[in-house]
Amino acid sequence: MPLVVVGSVALDSVITPSEERDDLLGGSGAYFSYAASFFTTARLVGVVGDDWPRRHTEMLQARGIDTSGLELIPGEKTFRWKGKYLENMNDRETLDVALGAMEKFDPTLPEVYRKCEYLFLANDPPPLQLGVLRQCEGPKLVMADTMDLWIKTERDSLIELLGSIDAVVLNDSEAKLLTGEGNMAIAAAAVRALGPRIVVIKKGEHGAMLVSDEDLCLLPAYPTDRVIDPTGAGDSFAGGLMGYLAETGDLTPAGMRKAIAIGTVVASFTVEGFSLDRLQEITREDIEKRLAEYCGMIGV
Amino acid sequence: MPLVVVGSVALDSVITPSEERDDLLGGSGAYFSYAASFFTTARLVGVVGDDWPRRHTEMLQARGIDTSGLELIPGEKTFRWKGKYLENMNDRETLDVALGAMEKFDPTLPEVYRKCEYLFLANDPPPLQLGVLRQCEGPKLVMADTMDLWIKTERDSLIELLGSIDAVVLNDSEAKLLTGEGNMAIAAAAVRALGPRIVVIKKGEHGAMLVSDEDLCLLPAYPTDRVIDPTGAGDSFAGGLMGYLAETGDLTPAGMRKAIAIGTVVASFTVEGFSLDRLQEITREDIEKRLAEYCGMIGV
Repeated sequence: MPLVVVGSVALDSVITPSEERDDLLGGSGAYFSYAASFFTTARLVGVVGDDWPRRHTEMLQARGIDTSGLELIPGEKTFRWKGKYLENMNDRETLDVALGAMEKFDPTLPEVYRKCEYLFLANDPPPLQLGVLRQCEGPKLVMADTMDLWIKTERDSLIELLGSIDAVVLNDSEAKLLTGEGNMAIAAAAVRALGPRIVVIKKGEHGAMLVSDEDLCLLPAYPTDRVIDPTGAGDSFAGGLMGYLAETGDLTPAGMRKAIAIGTVVASFTVEGFSLDRLQEITREDIEKRLAEYCGMIGV
Repeated sequence: MPLVVVGSVALDSVITPSEERDDLLGGSGAYFSYAASFFTTARLVGVVGDDWPRRHTEMLQARGIDTSGLELIPGEKTFRWKGKYLENMNDRETLDVALGAMEKFDPTLPEVYRKCEYLFLANDPPPLQLGVLRQCEGPKLVMADTMDLWIKTERDSLIELLGSIDAVVLNDSEAKLLTGEGNMAIAAAAVRALGPRIVVIKKGEHGAMLVSDEDLCLLPAYPTDRVIDPTGAGDSFAGGLMGYLAETGDLTPAGMRKAIAIGTVVASFTVEGFSLDRLQEITREDIEKRLAEYCGMIGV
């Protein structure tokens, strides 16, 4: 089944302890859709400006990604983010953000997108996420991401969103900010009490926790020894996860666990290069191979 | 098989965000031996002073722990540690340390201890750990712990120790300090290059990583929603792990993984109370029950 993702498409500047890169293809929608494209057709909804290199769109299209929902607003600039990773490669500071075309992002979904069964609302203002959700005709699984900014400034609409979706994926720090609970077992239950029956808490290099009606599952991160740039790890985790779910339609606890493991493995490739560099080098077979290796590392 | 543990026996003062307690039974040797006592006879080597309450020794003996290696030095005070946990319950500061009798700790192992097959050298100065090791007659498995202080001040003797033991258990921050590597996959390999064929990196609430010749295994922590006092989590993790290994004698990769899982579960009980309070409430059956639950939470 195809899936729809609504998110940012960006040009990033990234500083790591050892390197600095500018004008990188980035954004939650870009990372998500590329990761999902290993498994299914991703329909991307986003916005860019005049400065958006046409070759990026062509590259996404060559992956089978439907870019008919990617709007170019003339006279605007593409969203730009500049960030710096600290020595531990887990924490980062945002140095600069220029919203550009994102400021006018008010997506109207193409007709074919509205009938999607799988919808991912990447990190955008909750009112925008709600607006997109209302355009869809009874999707089977809606998952959303969010961020500290919206938890602080758009709490009411975020709570409304959480009451309207099936699943949410958020960082441990965001879960703590949202619920006031630093203990992730308690925080996950508190998020579930706000509506989503599936909660996935991302812990960066420490893995992920899934809590649903039927399951509580803890999966560590794949221990790659080559962390080049963590940007997009969370979005490609979600892309692998949702892409696999959309491919299989298996929403059982076992299916969800496998999807989290797939997301974990895809994210581990993402961090091994800047932008989509590493993902562009690998195939579905590489993912399956690392998945098998990963599955051998966990469990008793 | 009985196992020998050489470590501290202490009276702790612990401050958590919600509570403060004084004169708690603590110390690496106490936590370790109690945790191990669910599985095997632990022979404890340690030192206390005049102020040591006799009832603590009796309680340990009632668990089947051999305390003939626990020396009382007249005129000395028992080692005291005072610490405060930060809001996240993972980080702590040491507020006060009074070595007392520990300053004169220079253990001579009882004859029966010297023939032990399983030896755990808890966090003590590396020259002391080496001195103990030299008294033993070819143990089957020697595991050691250490701390940031010895990595900084006793590096040479610590390196000598690492070259003489089978296994080491250390925190992620200690692994980084020892090797200069923040990436735990790389750090574990670097520690192994110093000698121990088994390296267990503890990541607190994020679980543990085991690296050996035959295996690389990642096990998350059990997600208890009742963290009262994290003191002793690492030592009781090691105690459960070694106790189980000494009971089964199974040093295969599968046996090691199960031992790590046992240690994880025992540690999850430890943090649910101050001192040994929670461990004193539970039975082997409770451990097995939580182990089964835990095993159901991990793996794909």
